[in-house]
Amino acid sequence: MNYLMVLYILGFILRFEAVFLLLPALVGLIYQESSGFSYLLTAALCFLFSFLLTRRKPKSSKLYTRDGFVTVAMSWVIMSIFGAMPFVLSRDIPSYVDALFETISGFTTTGASILNDVEALTHAGLFWRSFTHWVGGMGVFVFIMAILPLMGGSTMNLMKAESPGPSVSKLVPHVKDTAKILYIIYLGVTVSEILLLCVFGMPLFDAVTTSFGTVGTGGFGIKNDSFTGYSPALQNIVTIFMILSGINYSFYFCILSKRFRDAFQIEEIRWYLFIILAAVGVISVDTQHMYGSLGETVRHAFFQVGSIITTTGFATTDFDLWPSLSKTILVILMFIGACAGSTGGGIKVSRLVILFKSIKKEISLIIHPREIRKIRMDGHVVEHATLRSTNVFLCIYFVVLLFSTLLVSVDEFDFTTNFTAVVSTLNNIGPGLNLVGPTQNFSIFSVFSKFVLMFDMLAGRLELFPVMVLLMPGTWKRK
Amino acid sequence: MNYLMVLYILGFILRFEAVFLLLPALVGLIYQESSGFSYLLTAALCFLFSFLLTRRKPKSSKLYTRDGFVTVAMSWVIMSIFGAMPFVLSRDIPSYVDALFETISGFTTTGASILNDVEALTHAGLFWRSFTHWVGGMGVFVFIMAILPLMGGSTMNLMKAESPGPSVSKLVPHVKDTAKILYIIYLGVTVSEILLLCVFGMPLFDAVTTSFGTVGTGGFGIKNDSFTGYSPALQNIVTIFMILSGINYSFYFCILSKRFRDAFQIEEIRWYLFIILAAVGVISVDTQHMYGSLGETVRHAFFQVGSIITTTGFATTDFDLWPSLSKTILVILMFIGACAGSTGGGIKVSRLVILFKSIKKEISLIIHPREIRKIRMDGHVVEHATLRSTNVFLCIYFVVLLFSTLLVSVDEFDFTTNFTAVVSTLNNIGPGLNLVGPTQNFSIFSVFSKFVLMFDMLAGRLELFPVMVLLMPGTWKRK
Repeated sequence: MNYLMVLYILGFILRFEAVFLLLPALVGLIYQESSGFSYLLTAALCFLFSFLLTRRKPKSSKLYTRDGFVTVAMSWVIMSIFGAMPFVLSRDIPSYVDALFETISGFTTTGASILNDVEALTHAGLFWRSFTHWVGGMGVFVFIMAILPLMGGSTMNLMKAESPGPSVSKLVPHVKDTAKILYIIYLGVTVSEILLLCVFGMPLFDAVTTSFGTVGTGGFGIKNDSFTGYSPALQNIVTIFMILSGINYSFYFCILSKRFRDAFQIEEIRWYLFIILAAVGVISVDTQHMYGSLGETVRHAFFQVGSIITTTGFATTDFDLWPSLSKTILVILMFIGACAGSTGGGIKVSRLVILFKSIKKEISLIIHPREIRKIRMDGHVVEHATLRSTNVFLCIYFVVLLFSTLLVSVDEFDFTTNFTAVVSTLNNIGPGLNLVGPTQNFSIFSVFSKFVLMFDMLAGRLELFPVMVLLMPGTWKRK
Repeated sequence: MNYLMVLYILGFILRFEAVFLLLPALVGLIYQESSGFSYLLTAALCFLFSFLLTRRKPKSSKLYTRDGFVTVAMSWVIMSIFGAMPFVLSRDIPSYVDALFETISGFTTTGASILNDVEALTHAGLFWRSFTHWVGGMGVFVFIMAILPLMGGSTMNLMKAESPGPSVSKLVPHVKDTAKILYIIYLGVTVSEILLLCVFGMPLFDAVTTSFGTVGTGGFGIKNDSFTGYSPALQNIVTIFMILSGINYSFYFCILSKRFRDAFQIEEIRWYLFIILAAVGVISVDTQHMYGSLGETVRHAFFQVGSIITTTGFATTDFDLWPSLSKTILVILMFIGACAGSTGGGIKVSRLVILFKSIKKEISLIIHPREIRKIRMDGHVVEHATLRSTNVFLCIYFVVLLFSTLLVSVDEFDFTTNFTAVVSTLNNIGPGLNLVGPTQNFSIFSVFSKFVLMFDMLAGRLELFPVMVLLMPGTWKRK
């Protein structure tokens, strides 16, 4: 492993985090809160460490796949370790473990909180919480690559490790240009949402933090009742932007390059929209007795389905009170997740489509043993390597899911609470059911369980492999 | 598809069922119960259908893999449809849907019951319930093959479809001899248990039915409190026989052929015993405050772990009252299941061992991309086809699991009840948690949910593929 290069990149990451931290400091200044200084202080600390780590550029900048995975996993851990400090310094979250949980939950765009009273936080704290979603949503490496050519040919290995989905498709030949395009779209969507929310009467601060949470598919709100208090119009705007943020970004790229045919032929997106509509339909019928009118029922159903399938996690209603069928649909949507190449989490629609196609293929091999059949997506044959890594992904996924549920159950809460807490963190959603339902929070768990759930959030956001590589003893052995 | 041959074999199966049904008729005669006549009548009906279907042997006896899968799946359905009749005729179970549920639960060795009061049943009914476990445990095709050479070279396709485990290994060159050896071991273990239980003071009728339920890893009891009322000695005997029945039968074959070294080198069995000991250890610590002494705690832990991992489903204690950690361990054991090539259900230990090895291989491929590494079990390289079918099995498994949970939740019970009801039936265990816990039963579910759970029991016992082939439209299309 190229340790020097790994440390060098970690130093680089911290320099960016220092810059990020200046924003909440500025918010603190605007609202004249002393908590702003905590952010300034942490920024200084990040800069100091960054300075020490990047003093000398290593001779070899070569990074193997393994090194890329380790670098990305370590970066997210380091970012969270430093990002949690201002919460403690400002006394917004006095316990460091809780602050770390909140920060990891932010960067991984989970949105699971340990706070009983969100509204007690300073503006700087609320801003930083939501801003971590925005940074984590598209990914910090994608950001860095958009800005500077960091290390020649090794960049793809970093981007592969950080980007969501079974395969990273380069939109344009150069990684740097791809990253730039992604961030431009990302920024565009964010600004549009902020403007639209402001037009419909939301205060600017609320609009900015809400948009960070929506576009990054995070889910941290700034109100104790999440989204219940906002007007139906604002709720609908957020619904639309959540669903838009769960769509594969290559769709927007196709639209921007006027390749409309390509855009609307992406199979994954069709399935994604079909699942949303089907879920909204069933839930609307199942919950209609709970709300005053059909319009209200459909509005809540759309908001909640959009919020869960994109793994955002906002709530306009306490869905833990919904009938069992609707709750089970939400749990299944938690597993499905958004499209690959979006900011959303979960297993991803395209992985499931590949999965269904390979199940169909295997069974039809029993029926017609001599048939030769290839699995296709969007008209292209899915490569054997993609199929195998999709399968292995799912296997690791279920192993992590069961093991984590086992570990968390040491706290002796009921099965539904434990199971949905793990499902919710592993898929980067936020709320679960029962004791971690939308009106509850994760403060009930022990320190041990919190660490298990933090691991799950990171494993989910980085799509398992980087975290697994980090844990394998073989990674750290010298050959 | 060779329809004539499929029907011919179905006719054959019914002839065997007619013979099986004479046993409970005999029990009815001994206990002078009029219910015995229901069994006689059904036997006559089976014989009549059998006569009609097997009048002429088809010219071609060739069966392709697909035909084998369809035949086996259909046979299990037909057997259950006829096997349920005497329950209704004798008024033991007045509703036919309930009787069908109970019979499928019996043949698939699940042991999930819809009866509120088991003790109200006639002796003939109790005997038939338990006997279906014994027939279903080793499989009816294995039985037929042990007795007569049905159709030359096509037999392997039938046995492959019915036998549990990722790959059927022939113990000896001829399928017929393999089947014979399996049934001799099976019978030997059953008789040993009956004798041992009688020696320790259990009445003969109880000993016979209990042994059918243990050796077939079924779980139907003849008491309302399952195994709580029997003495600790009897409980321990059953524990031992449950664990023995969950072991790969090639172990016993190796022992019988004095290949002791081979026997003790089977990797799967080592893992199986390790998992049992680990689970008993943790549960004993977790539940020690609930029982009077350490001995009692360990006895219950051993019984319950053995009962669940082998997918039997007997209970000596209401484990639904156990702390959350222990309950989660039981749920995970439900997934794991017994060894391949045993009578137990679940995913099977060997599949999970293969799964873990392939995860390890994939991750170490990231670490050392140029390394060539093969997955080995018991010293042999696991073939690519086995790996792929294991992967596909797991994928279908989780899809069926999630879909069934969704469908069952229409009944609006809580998530834990729905989820564990499906886990329990799909893995052929019997009890779940909450409303389907060990002191409860499945009568609460609607007719629709009962059919979903019946499907899960059959899918689980036949290891998914035969049932899936039955459902694919391609199977029924003429080429």
